[in-house]
Amino acid sequence: MQLNRYNWIILIVAACMLMLSFSEDAAAQLKNQMVRLAKIQVDPLQLEQYNSALKEQMATAIRLEQGVLTYYAVADKNDPSHITILEIYADSAAYKLHIETSHFRKYKEKVQHMVKSLELTDVNLIGSAKKPGM
Amino acid sequence: MQLNRYNWIILIVAACMLMLSFSEDAAAQLKNQMVRLAKIQVDPLQLEQYNSALKEQMATAIRLEQGVLTYYAVADKNDPSHITILEIYADSAAYKLHIETSHFRKYKEKVQHMVKSLELTDVNLIGSAKKPGM
Repeated sequence: MQLNRYNWIILIVAACMLMLSFSEDAAAQLKNQMVRLAKIQVDPLQLEQYNSALKEQMATAIRLEQGVLTYYAVADKNDPSHITILEIYADSAAYKLHIETSHFRKYKEKVQHMVKSLELTDVNLIGSAKKPGM
Repeated sequence: MQLNRYNWIILIVAACMLMLSFSEDAAAQLKNQMVRLAKIQVDPLQLEQYNSALKEQMATAIRLEQGVLTYYAVADKNDPSHITILEIYADSAAYKLHIETSHFRKYKEKVQHMVKSLELTDVNLIGSAKKPGM
């Protein structure tokens, strides 16, 4: 098959429209993301058990739930019982599904007497940058 | 070349030692990481300029500096002038190099009259989990 000048123009325009629709999709996905900071104060005597339950919850949610995208959990160096978690979900529907899953309910039940306070702050992602593979 | 039973044992032991050394390297790298939460209050009237300078700083540092690994910057939904940044460096030496770079100095100079307060908290990573490609 040989392409003439008009075939090429149509092909190029179609490719541009396709690329544009992909970048719009990506922008819409980013805009819908639900991002949250959870600040948690844990009973210092139960910190090891809490961290273990938290890590299990994060790994399971990422593995099993399509809409759970990113977790980072950090502890203050000066007081490791002060924990901050950065959570990114695909959208609020994904978050609503998440809190109904059996692994999340199991986590909440397990830690209910370990957590002294919980403060949730809804945030917007200004930006992120990472080395490849991080 | 044919391998006898002893050759095989030596090969397997060597492979195990190699794997162990890699996993020790990885653990040591993780242990040396410097992780930090920066809480920044920005002049609301200069928020757009601040966010733009911040995004440029993050992208440049990740691109140019081997030891700058991860940045996430988020803004409170209720008050976008309250910003939190999660920063991960390979180690404290990488951080010391970072604050001496020309792009970081340029950023600090540009935002000096935009930032109302800055609180730095050293933290340890309890764990992270992410979808592939996130």
